[in-house]
Amino acid sequence: MEDLEGGVDYLADERKKAQFDLNAMKILWAGNQHQFQIADRMARLVASDPEFKKDDRVRLERKELFKNTLRKANRAWKRIIELKLTEEEASQLRFFVDEPAYTDLHWGMFVPAIKGQGTEEQQRKWLPLAYRMQIIGCYAQTELGHGSNVQGLETTATFDPETDEFVIHSPTLTSSKWWPGGLGKISTHAVVYARLMTDGKEHGVHGFIVQLRSLEDHLPLPGITVGDIGMKFGNGAYNTMDNGVLRFDNVRIPRDQMLMRVLQVTKEGNVVKSDVPRQLIYGTMVYVRQTIVYDASRALSKAVCIATRYSAVRRQFGSQNGRETQVIDYKTQQSRLFPLLATAYAFRIVGDWLKWLYTDVTERLRANDFSTLPEAHACTAGLKSLTTSVTADAIEECRKLCGGHGYLCSSGLPELFAVYVPACTYEGDNVVLLLQVARILMKTVSQLGSGKPPVGTMEYMGRAEHLLQSHCSAQKAEDWLNPDVVLEAFEARSVRMSVACAKNLSQFSNPEEGFLELSADLVGASVAHCQLIVVSKFIEKLKQDIPGEGVKKQLQALCGIYALSIMGKHLGDFLSTGCIKPKHASLANDLLRSLFSKVRPNAIALVDAFNYTDHFLGSVLGRYDGNVYPKLYEEAWKDPFNESAVPEGFHEYVRPILKRQVRSSRL
Amino acid sequence: MEDLEGGVDYLADERKKAQFDLNAMKILWAGNQHQFQIADRMARLVASDPEFKKDDRVRLERKELFKNTLRKANRAWKRIIELKLTEEEASQLRFFVDEPAYTDLHWGMFVPAIKGQGTEEQQRKWLPLAYRMQIIGCYAQTELGHGSNVQGLETTATFDPETDEFVIHSPTLTSSKWWPGGLGKISTHAVVYARLMTDGKEHGVHGFIVQLRSLEDHLPLPGITVGDIGMKFGNGAYNTMDNGVLRFDNVRIPRDQMLMRVLQVTKEGNVVKSDVPRQLIYGTMVYVRQTIVYDASRALSKAVCIATRYSAVRRQFGSQNGRETQVIDYKTQQSRLFPLLATAYAFRIVGDWLKWLYTDVTERLRANDFSTLPEAHACTAGLKSLTTSVTADAIEECRKLCGGHGYLCSSGLPELFAVYVPACTYEGDNVVLLLQVARILMKTVSQLGSGKPPVGTMEYMGRAEHLLQSHCSAQKAEDWLNPDVVLEAFEARSVRMSVACAKNLSQFSNPEEGFLELSADLVGASVAHCQLIVVSKFIEKLKQDIPGEGVKKQLQALCGIYALSIMGKHLGDFLSTGCIKPKHASLANDLLRSLFSKVRPNAIALVDAFNYTDHFLGSVLGRYDGNVYPKLYEEAWKDPFNESAVPEGFHEYVRPILKRQVRSSRL
Ligand SMILES: Cc1cc2nc3c(=O)[nH]c(=O)nc-3n(C[C@H](O)[C@H](O)[C@H](O)COP(=O)(O)OP(=O)(O)OC[C@H]3O[C@@H](n4cnc5c(N)ncnc54)[C@H](O)[C@@H]3O)c2cc1C
Ligand SMILES: Cc1cc2nc3c(=O)[nH]c(=O)nc-3n(C[C@H](O)[C@H](O)[C@H](O)COP(=O)(O)OP(=O)(O)OC[C@H]3O[C@@H](n4cnc5c(N)ncnc54)[C@H](O)[C@@H]3O)c2cc1C
Ligand SMILES: [Ca+2]
Repeated sequence: MEDLEGGVDYLADERKKAQFDLNAMKILWAGNQHQFQIADRMARLVASDPEFKKDDRVRLERKELFKNTLRKANRAWKRIIELKLTEEEASQLRFFVDEPAYTDLHWGMFVPAIKGQGTEEQQRKWLPLAYRMQIIGCYAQTELGHGSNVQGLETTATFDPETDEFVIHSPTLTSSKWWPGGLGKISTHAVVYARLMTDGKEHGVHGFIVQLRSLEDHLPLPGITVGDIGMKFGNGAYNTMDNGVLRFDNVRIPRDQMLMRVLQVTKEGNVVKSDVPRQLIYGTMVYVRQTIVYDASRALSKAVCIATRYSAVRRQFGSQNGRETQVIDYKTQQSRLFPLLATAYAFRIVGDWLKWLYTDVTERLRANDFSTLPEAHACTAGLKSLTTSVTADAIEECRKLCGGHGYLCSSGLPELFAVYVPACTYEGDNVVLLLQVARILMKTVSQLGSGKPPVGTMEYMGRAEHLLQSHCSAQKAEDWLNPDVVLEAFEARSVRMSVACAKNLSQFSNPEEGFLELSADLVGASVAHCQLIVVSKFIEKLKQDIPGEGVKKQLQALCGIYALSIMGKHLGDFLSTGCIKPKHASLANDLLRSLFSKVRPNAIALVDAFNYTDHFLGSVLGRYDGNVYPKLYEEAWKDPFNESAVPEGFHEYVRPILKRQVRSSRL
Repeated sequence: MEDLEGGVDYLADERKKAQFDLNAMKILWAGNQHQFQIADRMARLVASDPEFKKDDRVRLERKELFKNTLRKANRAWKRIIELKLTEEEASQLRFFVDEPAYTDLHWGMFVPAIKGQGTEEQQRKWLPLAYRMQIIGCYAQTELGHGSNVQGLETTATFDPETDEFVIHSPTLTSSKWWPGGLGKISTHAVVYARLMTDGKEHGVHGFIVQLRSLEDHLPLPGITVGDIGMKFGNGAYNTMDNGVLRFDNVRIPRDQMLMRVLQVTKEGNVVKSDVPRQLIYGTMVYVRQTIVYDASRALSKAVCIATRYSAVRRQFGSQNGRETQVIDYKTQQSRLFPLLATAYAFRIVGDWLKWLYTDVTERLRANDFSTLPEAHACTAGLKSLTTSVTADAIEECRKLCGGHGYLCSSGLPELFAVYVPACTYEGDNVVLLLQVARILMKTVSQLGSGKPPVGTMEYMGRAEHLLQSHCSAQKAEDWLNPDVVLEAFEARSVRMSVACAKNLSQFSNPEEGFLELSADLVGASVAHCQLIVVSKFIEKLKQDIPGEGVKKQLQALCGIYALSIMGKHLGDFLSTGCIKPKHASLANDLLRSLFSKVRPNAIALVDAFNYTDHFLGSVLGRYDGNVYPKLYEEAWKDPFNESAVPEGFHEYVRPILKRQVRSSRL
């Protein structure tokens, strides 16, 4: 987005080098013309509103920071209402405000939980309240003692037929709810996950709508202890969120506040399964994780945009026509940066595809077709894990690519990192998710030849026989431009790793023990499978018509960079399974270098295509106009720490040292 | 260190499992009995002094945080004087205070710069002032526009023979000094690096002692603009340091404040080289980088200690005798954690060796023997790069290993990460350093067979002919326990990668162009070389007598884990160069798993051996007694944010939403 404020564009020369239609690429990145326009309008709306200023965030102490977030959430809500924004527009507006807030959990978890797990009656009652924000909700699942193992949660919900109520209770210290966002200070309600008990029997963990705070004075209701769990990683960052702790001392709620779409408790205390299958809740997980994958491409592209622009501004050593070399021209810089640029595009494409997958799954669910659900579930779990892990590492790599200046908060990268990393943990620890994927992979392998052909992203496993013996056909570097060659190498690698794991597993008499013992290898097989999904979706995209001069060509280069840089990084997999030979790897490496050169003149335009405002980037190094140094310098002087030349504490603690008022006889 | 406060030891069962002499291991870790005692005493001294409390650090706003650091530095100085501590003790005390402060740069950079680059006369004048802290100094090299490329610095020091002075000047915005620690608010003096100009001619970049602030009122002297560059990554963390910005407007200093050990300017303005060779400054770099490598093992071991203890406390899923499985028993957890534990020991051993190397280099320098200097310089540069990169990533991995709770500041890991990562950038950007190593590797390869056999850590290159054709002899998993098998694989990999690079380079008519084009591969060769150094130093250590029952056995297991996990991670290198075959890799992988099982019962004792106090760890998750949950819970309630149930801003910004005082006709 052109933020020139009437000034000079120090990156103008770079922009002139681009060999593709920038507008067409912007639309491709946004999804379509309609989505582009919404995003563009919302981003400008936020950027031009001084109330959404965010550069002071890293300096604010917690209470002030939090208050500031409440102010922004209020402002956003007002604008949404005043401008009569659609749901799509509102969600984009909140995204560009770029500050974690209680509203994220309200809209992102509380509402979907009721939609997914509430009966129609419950939805009719609660959703309008939530939509109008007459109540504010959060998602209270995790406890001090249990996160990954949801079945191990200790909070109890005991049915009392006498009063037709559930008694929600925290029986141990470790059963304290711990982490839910929005819980600490703001939510009036929560979906609380608890162990359902009727008549002394347990019936697993279920969701309950529980009011936490008075709608009058906002104080915790009787029996409820609630607070904030304290500071989290980073300055500013996720500390704008009130992740909370919550304990129940025999809190009573009406029976109809158990979310009863799949399981009902009658007023007699009987537990009845509804005809809605339990897998239905997978639908919500697919939804939530699909948004996480999409967000990965957003966070990653933001970091890449900053590092790419700064790498074109920064000059160090060497000389080109008398000036020093732009660091983006160093092959080491390219070999670290361009794969991340390619990954941003790859994740965006797979994110778009997952949106489609979710729609497809939803339609099938409506038609009572559950056949694709397990595969869709595994696929989103795996992609959530892959994309968030890669993005977290990539943000930090982008920060390092900026040298010393990347360590300043004004670079925007420290806060981006700190705010992003928990995505590797929430909604499923990334390793635990990969182990789930591995289970499905092993099941798929064991069913090969059983007449039940694998579906969806597992389909290629049906060609295992061929893939176990295929040979790489690359003879010269350019052969790696052929998508079939790339795809076959990735498919072969994945199948062979899975089959090898299955073979090793079969040596164990106790399969569960085997699974535990070989779990590190199984995780490797899952990663290979997930990387293949991304590569194949990228390649599929390239088979479509892509409007705009030169756009497809750029994407082809990026697809090559994405695939071949993964191959380089995981070369051990490809070689040890014999999918490729060292000479093929060396050809791929040669091609990769030449693809870097191809992308180089387009690099700035490729990040301009993300259409991010300077406000959204929040980075002096990533400024659209490249005018980095004067702004870095100005930024420093704005810091309140520079208000006085002699800092607080100097006279008390440093002067006595200098004046030798602290001394011993020895010195 | 036993911090039980009279309470229960929840990790007692784990401690009973240990199969080695803990005290002997503690001494090995510390270096020797003497060093152990000093470290132990200083750590306890700090831990028991409430003035050194640090758990509020993440919550303090910058000015308060900084004041607090000044207070601690003052306290430390007082204790050092009162207790008449030796230099060694003082440095340990400062280390355990564990808070970056202006004193780090004073002792760590200012004093060594004068020692290394000052004449004897200059040393006699300035060192006593610095030792007594009558002046406080920093190291002002980096500028806004130049960090890595020191020869590109723009600050000028122009000799004026009329007054016998140098005029220090900042001719451009980008020539502003930017980053020096201690500069922003505290230093009275700096060693300033500037371009020496006499009689209109340039003579390269040299160091000058410049007074910045009045010793009376601490205000900047005329012509000097100085301030802080603003917030850096993380809460607390490195924000205790006043990294600064500095500009000179024709500031005059006497001629004798140029550091003249290698180059002198006479009062006539003649520039005279002394007989001390320029390489001498390498000595200082070897010294500084050796301390960085040692510090890497400290930071890494701290993170590993936290993650290991918490992994033994944390239970999730499965069941062992009715209780859930400790997450440390999952092979995925082990395969992520134990290589880092092994790496901590590996870096400690190589750090100890580097201390020896520095002594050796210093002695040779005294005897005018410069023969080992280039190799020592390359080796410390490479090891600085390797150990800091690995440590930064490892801290973040340890944080992830703690699941959600690792994201809380009270885990200690976020601050440790944020404070540690700049080590990848300062004292040489890690990629730039690896490129320097690559130059020496290429030179060494080109001189093979020239009758000039490679020395020191390059010695194995002399056996290139053999190593280019050697075959791995491992037949069964246990063969990988044989250090010769491991060493040969690592040596072969390194030689083959270097030789392959050299061969590819020779295809270029312009070698400099070739070096740029192939630089990513060259970096790979440098990493291989540096990893080999660590592996070989670990193996050398194991050839020595090691006191204490079972100690050597543990170290052997750790050495195996270190080497084989690197092999697994960089398998592509080993396979593509044909050093090992896929079957060898598979055997190594099997052995690795069994080594994890071997280490498992010793894991807690192996981190106890670091002898860290709970104060130093600063982590609720890493507590010695394992009493994690109650303390996490207490910690949350201590946060001032929990002082009131209804947060500031609620009435103004949230209540109107809930009460629908903000609304539109549409909803
Ligand atoms: C910023 C943030 C926001 C959050 N928001 C919410 C929220 O709004 N609502 C909510 O309910 N929760 C929330 N959470 C909690 C989050 O969902 C959990 O932290 C997450 O599910 C991980 O669980 P855990 O913390 O128990 O990790 P653990 O399971 O304790 O993980 C610790 C280690 O054990 C390993 N491990 C665990 N099980 C296995 C296994 N079976 N096999 C191998 N290894 C294993 C993991 O890989 C990890 O390395 C949030 C967390 C964070 C950090
Ligand atoms: C916390 C902190 C404390 C510091 N303390 C001090 C201090 O006390 N005194 C002081 O003088 N300085 C200090 N510094 C500055 C520090 O020394 C520099 O930041 C460091 O030398 C890196 O230089 P740079 O920032 O110019 O990085 P750059 O060189 O600009 O690096 C940017 C990118 O370009 C790449 N690059 C650069 N040159 C090449 C090349 N030739 N080939 C390939 N790639 C290249 C790098 O790999 C990197 O990815 C400090 C920095 C930090 C972050
Ligand atoms: Ca304050």
